[in-house]
Order: sequence, then structure tokens, then C-alpha cells
Amino acid sequence: MVTTVRDILREKGDHVWSVQPDTHLLRALVLMTERNIGFVPVLEDGKIVGVFSERDFARLLAEQSDLPLDTPVGEVMVHPVYFVYPDQTVEDCMTVMSAKHFRHLPVMQDERCIGVISIGDVIKRIMLEKDIAIENLENLLWANLI
Amino acid sequence: MVTTVRDILREKGDHVWSVQPDTHLLRALVLMTERNIGFVPVLEDGKIVGVFSERDFARLLAEQSDLPLDTPVGEVMVHPVYFVYPDQTVEDCMTVMSAKHFRHLPVMQDERCIGVISIGDVIKRIMLEKDIAIENLENLLWANLI
Repeated sequence: MVTTVRDILREKGDHVWSVQPDTHLLRALVLMTERNIGFVPVLEDGKIVGVFSERDFARLLAEQSDLPLDTPVGEVMVHPVYFVYPDQTVEDCMTVMSAKHFRHLPVMQDERCIGVISIGDVIKRIMLEKDIAIENLENLLWANLI
Repeated sequence: MVTTVRDILREKGDHVWSVQPDTHLLRALVLMTERNIGFVPVLEDGKIVGVFSERDFARLLAEQSDLPLDTPVGEVMVHPVYFVYPDQTVEDCMTVMSAKHFRHLPVMQDERCIGVISIGDVIKRIMLEKDIAIENLENLLWANLI
């Protein structure tokens, strides 16, 4: 059984916590803290124009320590945006995440961001797939031994 | 084959990038950026007294946006510290990391911090263990079929 991005969204829910380009940096930080997330897509009229993460924030301040926290996210967000489609597999996500060292990927459908997949979501499913493979093989082996 | 924390350190190297309690917050951020790490243990005379991560930084500023970046890490670090010993297994690490939502664990030996294990290190090894189990079962199955 191949797990798709759609399967993960169905399980975790597809609410997207996002900010807009004119959202202040501080508001983005507070949102991430309140929602216990490490990443937000930046949306403008529903379209994704960038992304921003806790890691991006720490690295930004390391470079520019006097950056005011009322800076609009649009000025410091990361883009272009790497994303996945709902019918891609968890293995597709893993490939992009590993190659690019991303912990999150927005999910796009009809040019709209319909969810966010984290590396944790992806790994949980891949582990589950491997456990199922092990169980199936063990069952097959027992069936052949008796 | 059971993978221990020692096995992981042997593979990734055991250099520990750390800060001291009087290190300024900004210096800790710059160190994490330069070394491409998301976490540093805070050491005093070789003993671990706290930890600090990119996530801790983002959440700290969300709560206290006027915090000066020359604040000593010792004033904002996270403690008590959860850690593992070198002879613990990757499954032990995974249990602590999942339960506490940690992405990193310091490794302690004779009261000294001899390394840091990340969730990425742990998952890589657990995936490898599962792949080996699958391969062994497939081989056993073939041996029983012919």
C-alpha cells in the first residue's frame, strides 16, 4: 500500500496556519508558538508566495541582529517555494526533504495551499509501511514453514 | 543487531559544539548558523547545565520580544537536561524524543557531555535496522521456497 500526501492530510486534518506578507515577524513567531508549529506558509490572496520557519528566524537574527520584529514577513520570507501535490507519495516527500534539508513541505492543489506536511508525518508513515512489510514477510515465512 | 548511541557517535564523530552560560545569545545563534546545527548544550567546566535550540530562541522572542541579544545564554537556557548514555539503544533515544518532543539529546559519560544525538541520526538508524530486517526475511523466505 502506497501512502500519499492526501492520506496524511486526511489523518492530520488540512487546516493551514498561515501568515500574509504584511504580517509582522513577531506575530508569525507568536502564531508558531501558540500552535506548536515550526513553519508557516506565507499566503497572498490564497496563493503561496513564500515560507518562514523557526530555523529561518534564528538564522536571520544571527546575520542581522538588529532586525526589528515588526518587519513584514514578506521582506524576510524564503522563496521560491518547494511543494508537493496531494497524489504524491510519502517517498516523494522524503526525497525532496532529504535533498533540500527541509522539515516541512506545503501541499498545493489548483494553485492553493491545502496543507503542510512535516518530516515527522513522513517518517511516521514510512516506518509504518516498513513495519507492515516486516509483518507480511513474517506471516509468509510462517505459512511456508508449516 | 542493536544500534547504540556509541555506534552513532562513532559514525558521526563526537565533536561537541557547545556554549557556556556567559556566552551571549547572539553568539549562540551565530555558532548554530555557522555549524548548521539547531541545538547546543550549555557547558560549565565541562559539566552540562542546560541546553538551547533554534526552537527555544523563536519561542523566547515570541514571549519576550524586547530581549537583548547580548543576554547570557545561562539566563534563558532550558533545564533540567534530559540525556542518554553511550550504551543506550536508538530505540531508547526515540522513546525519550517522542515522549518529550525533543529533536536532540546530549550524550553523557562520567558526568561529561561527549556528543549530541539528533532525531535525524536516530531515525536513519531505525530505518536501516528495519530495512535489514526486511532483507533478512526476504532471504529466509527465498531459501524456504527453493
